[in-house]
Amino acid sequence: MGIAEYMRFMPGEFEKRFARARELMERDNLVGLFITEGGNYTYFSGGQRDFSFSRPHILLLPRRGEPVAVVQKFVVRDRIREIWFDDVRVYQTLTGLPVALVADLMREKGMGEGRVGAELGYEQRLGIPFSDFSRLRKRLDQTEFMDAADLLWEVRVIKSPEEIRRHRRACRITVRAYEALFPSLRAGMSEREIIERFHRLLVEMGGTEPWSFICSGPGNYNGNSSGPTDRRIRRSDLVWIDGGCTYREYASDFCCTGTVGKPSSRQRKMQELMEEITRAVVQRVRPGIRACELDEINNIEWKKRGYDYGEINWGGGRIGHGLGWGSCLTEPPHIASYDQTVIRAGMVFTIEPGINTEYGSFQTEMDIAVTEEGCEILNEMDRSLRMIEG
Amino acid sequence: MGIAEYMRFMPGEFEKRFARARELMERDNLVGLFITEGGNYTYFSGGQRDFSFSRPHILLLPRRGEPVAVVQKFVVRDRIREIWFDDVRVYQTLTGLPVALVADLMREKGMGEGRVGAELGYEQRLGIPFSDFSRLRKRLDQTEFMDAADLLWEVRVIKSPEEIRRHRRACRITVRAYEALFPSLRAGMSEREIIERFHRLLVEMGGTEPWSFICSGPGNYNGNSSGPTDRRIRRSDLVWIDGGCTYREYASDFCCTGTVGKPSSRQRKMQELMEEITRAVVQRVRPGIRACELDEINNIEWKKRGYDYGEINWGGGRIGHGLGWGSCLTEPPHIASYDQTVIRAGMVFTIEPGINTEYGSFQTEMDIAVTEEGCEILNEMDRSLRMIEG
Repeated sequence: MGIAEYMRFMPGEFEKRFARARELMERDNLVGLFITEGGNYTYFSGGQRDFSFSRPHILLLPRRGEPVAVVQKFVVRDRIREIWFDDVRVYQTLTGLPVALVADLMREKGMGEGRVGAELGYEQRLGIPFSDFSRLRKRLDQTEFMDAADLLWEVRVIKSPEEIRRHRRACRITVRAYEALFPSLRAGMSEREIIERFHRLLVEMGGTEPWSFICSGPGNYNGNSSGPTDRRIRRSDLVWIDGGCTYREYASDFCCTGTVGKPSSRQRKMQELMEEITRAVVQRVRPGIRACELDEINNIEWKKRGYDYGEINWGGGRIGHGLGWGSCLTEPPHIASYDQTVIRAGMVFTIEPGINTEYGSFQTEMDIAVTEEGCEILNEMDRSLRMIEG
Repeated sequence: MGIAEYMRFMPGEFEKRFARARELMERDNLVGLFITEGGNYTYFSGGQRDFSFSRPHILLLPRRGEPVAVVQKFVVRDRIREIWFDDVRVYQTLTGLPVALVADLMREKGMGEGRVGAELGYEQRLGIPFSDFSRLRKRLDQTEFMDAADLLWEVRVIKSPEEIRRHRRACRITVRAYEALFPSLRAGMSEREIIERFHRLLVEMGGTEPWSFICSGPGNYNGNSSGPTDRRIRRSDLVWIDGGCTYREYASDFCCTGTVGKPSSRQRKMQELMEEITRAVVQRVRPGIRACELDEINNIEWKKRGYDYGEINWGGGRIGHGLGWGSCLTEPPHIASYDQTVIRAGMVFTIEPGINTEYGSFQTEMDIAVTEEGCEILNEMDRSLRMIEG
């Protein structure tokens, strides 16, 4: 058995994930799960995903019997050290999935007939070429591959105390990076310089995989998914930065905003309003409430103050999203009108309404972990507008 | 038309990519390309891929007529600034591909019947859920989706001077980071501390997306795809690091090795042998030779010196791989016995035979760009074993 060096969780953590997946396989009448996407693969196995398209790593989680990972020969010595269970099979080719080997293994594991869950639907991707999947399906004509997106997310959205600890640490690193960044900014710096400085701070403080968006200056306040440009910040600009990092693979994601010189009165007031409303939504988070109800609370809070959020919001289409481990920064649930997910303890997600105006981009994003009684704000910090020397 | 801020290439660069893709569509009798994977999407459009699974961005490249990108509403303002052509369509949902919209657009673009190239095969992935792709195929029952992997790679493997400039810069940053790293290492440091230091140096020197593997000490010299552990380096250990970064999205990938205290005579000799052989292969790189022939030259060079590389090699299954822009660090061609690719000017790839012994892990990886006459080594540096203070 490996020491799960890559994910560095105790085997009990993985056992719980697998046990939960098995309960849901019973519910959904599946004989097993066919896992290919890097995020799911690592989540359940502990082994690092491959960094290339050359060596698909896959995992079979049968409802009964032991799981098995299938890994390309070059990396298998390292993956065996990480994967928490014993059964790791090796293949040699570098030209795609070893279809015959996988089909035989699936038969061996009781997945050669019946319903097998796969990453086919909502917020999922296959981690193997489409043509390899087609060949596998042909070979296993007694197996019906079913969309297991709901099952996979139902397991993954509930975080363990150790997972939450990592999110908390990523958030604290990011808070400290913002605290160090803003006092060091000056008029005349370019967005690119600012972001390079921010990423250096995140890495210096122990974060990995720094990422960010930035927008600054009139005419640009709708750039909420922009990379940095060569634009230099100048007096009376508002500078909005959204970003974060990972700590041992778990993510932070929130923004921080400042003005070059003193904020105008309407800038200050809008930022305060935003924090007030975001906090009002956060205060309503508790197990049992639905994601769509939190979205509705946001609408009501705006309405109370004379605004229609549906009209003014910056078009994100949701006011929050799950955070976790994985292939991408966001995951279910969506805090949005169309998402009926019942919030439960252990979920980690953002609450981040935002608006873009001609005088600034305003958002006071909170990363939260749901507890039995309510929630913990993982990124508590001063959310007023920072002052940048003009 | 956008200013292609994200990729920051002049429109001419994208025009050449598209013109080449069209030539190949003629050859393969395709009416267009259906692009969903982030690497291909950005390569051809200039627009940043989405960072989530929530907002698939796709691109239609018809053989005749203008290309069109389909982007989710929230990010469209930013993507329009980046995408080099004018036709960007917007969708609202956050629950998957807008299948009806895409089907209509494909009909509008002449892709509603005939053969359409898609990312179905070798070293490709679909960037949308499998179930969305199935729904789209049902809607377009006159369209035959064909594997366009060969076509896509044939365009992407040839780099422009600007792309090569970025690889060169990423390589130089990495050389400088290694030069600064090794003299700062001391016995007693953990692998984790060493890698954190290396990543900080890469970012400080202007690199982005730092990555690495490390192995050190007897019993570990086969860990060529390991993340760092808490193991502390000690006297007479050999410390092998492989890593790199990106510069404006283009990658470096090569290793550097040292010993704690003086190397033993056999360590020194094996490192020298490795450099001699790697250089012998590199010297044979020129347009017209096949990837598999370069692999065979490596075998011959070892045989000349009394070794059988097939038996001693560390199991990578190839002695090199393409570098570029994309979703993962490696791309075609593979420098391997099974890859018949004819090498051409503009290709960028690694030459990296390696062996693991009980006294160390040896490799002197070179990142090269093929020229009309031969090739340029992008990561020229001192490849002898570095000395770490014991």
